Amino acid sequence: MTAIPGLTDGDVLTAVEGVRPGRESGEQVAEVFARGAWTGIAEPGDGVAGAFVGTFGAADALALVGEGTPPGGHPELLEAFDRWRPRFDPAVALRAFRNAAHLGIRLLLPGDAAWPAGVDDLGAHAPLALWCLGDPSAVRALRRSIALVGARAATGYGERVAADAAAGLADRGFAVLSGAAYGIDGAAHRAALASGGTTVAVLAGGLDRFYPSGHEQLLRRIAAEGAVLAELPCGFAPTKWRFLQRNRLIAAASRATVVLEAGARSGSLNTAGHAAALGRPLGAVPGSVYSATSAGCHRLLREYDAVCVRDAADMAELVAEPTGDLPLEGLEPVEDPLERRVLDALGPRSRRLDDIARRAGLGLGETASVLGLLTLEGTAVELPDGGWRRGR
Amino acid sequence: MTAIPGLTDGDVLTAVEGVRPGRESGEQVAEVFARGAWTGIAEPGDGVAGAFVGTFGAADALALVGEGTPPGGHPELLEAFDRWRPRFDPAVALRAFRNAAHLGIRLLLPGDAAWPAGVDDLGAHAPLALWCLGDPSAVRALRRSIALVGARAATGYGERVAADAAAGLADRGFAVLSGAAYGIDGAAHRAALASGGTTVAVLAGGLDRFYPSGHEQLLRRIAAEGAVLAELPCGFAPTKWRFLQRNRLIAAASRATVVLEAGARSGSLNTAGHAAALGRPLGAVPGSVYSATSAGCHRLLREYDAVCVRDAADMAELVAEPTGDLPLEGLEPVEDPLERRVLDALGPRSRRLDDIARRAGLGLGETASVLGLLTLEGTAVELPDGGWRRGR
Repeated sequence: MTAIPGLTDGDVLTAVEGVRPGRESGEQVAEVFARGAWTGIAEPGDGVAGAFVGTFGAADALALVGEGTPPGGHPELLEAFDRWRPRFDPAVALRAFRNAAHLGIRLLLPGDAAWPAGVDDLGAHAPLALWCLGDPSAVRALRRSIALVGARAATGYGERVAADAAAGLADRGFAVLSGAAYGIDGAAHRAALASGGTTVAVLAGGLDRFYPSGHEQLLRRIAAEGAVLAELPCGFAPTKWRFLQRNRLIAAASRATVVLEAGARSGSLNTAGHAAALGRPLGAVPGSVYSATSAGCHRLLREYDAVCVRDAADMAELVAEPTGDLPLEGLEPVEDPLERRVLDALGPRSRRLDDIARRAGLGLGETASVLGLLTLEGTAVELPDGGWRRGR
Repeated sequence: MTAIPGLTDGDVLTAVEGVRPGRESGEQVAEVFARGAWTGIAEPGDGVAGAFVGTFGAADALALVGEGTPPGGHPELLEAFDRWRPRFDPAVALRAFRNAAHLGIRLLLPGDAAWPAGVDDLGAHAPLALWCLGDPSAVRALRRSIALVGARAATGYGERVAADAAAGLADRGFAVLSGAAYGIDGAAHRAALASGGTTVAVLAGGLDRFYPSGHEQLLRRIAAEGAVLAELPCGFAPTKWRFLQRNRLIAAASRATVVLEAGARSGSLNTAGHAAALGRPLGAVPGSVYSATSAGCHRLLREYDAVCVRDAADMAELVAEPTGDLPLEGLEPVEDPLERRVLDALGPRSRRLDDIARRAGLGLGETASVLGLLTLEGTAVELPDGGWRRGR
């Protein structure tokens, strides 16, 4: 076992056991602890940390930071050590683990059955570990999930669409992923819960303090029936940077991102940008052109080729496997042009064949054969005087 | 001069002079008359008629129909003669010309200065002539026009968007083309008139009877300040077929078509289909996902790659010439990530450099240099104790 500098092996084992109940045998305890510790050392999305841990393993990488000398002396790594070293504190890490264990929070690691595989598409910027309060199988369900995001200052319209969409997605077996913010996020989580669906929230700070505080009750319900995730350990507050990085997780962990309402510069456009960068399908819900909270959605439709989605069915279709040649219904009314012209030429009273043909601008033969069809359909009626009139 | 069967040369000359005031010298009078007569013989969009007239000239083609024997005996032409012959009646044509002259209607022909050149893109399906009530220069202005179309059963929202769009397009020097129907069409024409812009209506029947009758006053104003067009001559009623063919003219005569509100099976989707088939830009205005009158617009956005347009500026952009590399504003807030992280790490009271660096997860050197920039901007304030706090 690679020792964690400044901690006894017993401390490390106890810490890991507290957040990995039923952990797999043979698990490298120091490696698990180090991954958790790294979540408090590198800011989310630190690609140098991802590459460094990927190369050396989390525990050896952590020990190198503790020693203070980057291997090789690559300038990017020198700079990174300069920012990691001040946050390297095994006591802080130990406290985060203990707090987590006390609150029933688990540590999820890449490769776990519950690990949201989509985040691995972030490459070196993927999270090194995730803290999870609630049911890990809800996190696993993110493999079939759609992220519903939008404005905090949502309108009644936006909240109604969010609620209908979340309920409809739950009915279709999709998990609903969001950020637990006021407005759209909250409406989406609530409706998913009310429909008995799976819902997961990702927070920008540690799970020991729910944010926003007005959603504490909602977050407790999400944790009880689904799961709440965070990349930061206990004791770390959300910052604007961490909100932006949290958004990348929402985009990466879901199969598609849908923006329901967003101002022209809303944070949910940042989530949309991450989804687009990852090649994930991106949907936007249209609204009134006079609504400031639909401006961001319309911008996504205009400038970023987002798909216009109206309801849960459209959202599910974003992630549907292609099913071959589904014929698109044409823009033209499905109607035979000749039938249309003969129908136009019929009146409420009897008209003779030549009169009908002249009005329709068609030949006698054509007109007679179309009249035959229309008579069968009942849209034309043949009369005893040899003429035709309009049917029902 | 090719004689028109059944009419004297004097009749023909008088008829033509009545609808071609100030006609060009050397104009083939019989040819002009025959083109006008053809508008009552072939239904709009009859490609065989277009090809036949294109090959033989309108007058000779008319004479051949009068004789009753198609040249060559091609089956398609035999069938066409079968439908044209019953409508060949020089007396009916003469009456249409006389009524037109009486009402101040002109006959426009391909190649006229006022001819809406866009309709020639319809090829053999282009109109052989157009009847025009009003100012031919308004028809000429269709070269810089946008078609605004939509539901008859429009909502207040749709009519407001139509009115704002038409006024904004008028301000930008665009003519507004529409179909004078109730709802969206009427709102668009009215707003264009109110803004002193140019507006043109295309009707599905002859110009001697305005349709819909409830828009008689509006159509008089359009004719007085702009123009009203029809492909059918006086005495011909609108039919459903003719409405569909009228829609092709609206799509072809304008530079772009915008659908403002449309039910899922609205006739304006037919206009949109013609615009798409002609390669004309197609716009759709978004609305509430719960509004049945926005369902057609959302379908255009989803299935037909229509551009989401919010206002006159967006509509004008549909037909704008590409202006090179206009950089798109990114989805990410325009913000330096390091500045964001240092700002997040500042508090309302003094914090030391190493504290700020640790909170930001950045090195001391980086943090100091970013703090320098933020101090210059005023977003950070350097304090006498050597620390920094958040600025304004």
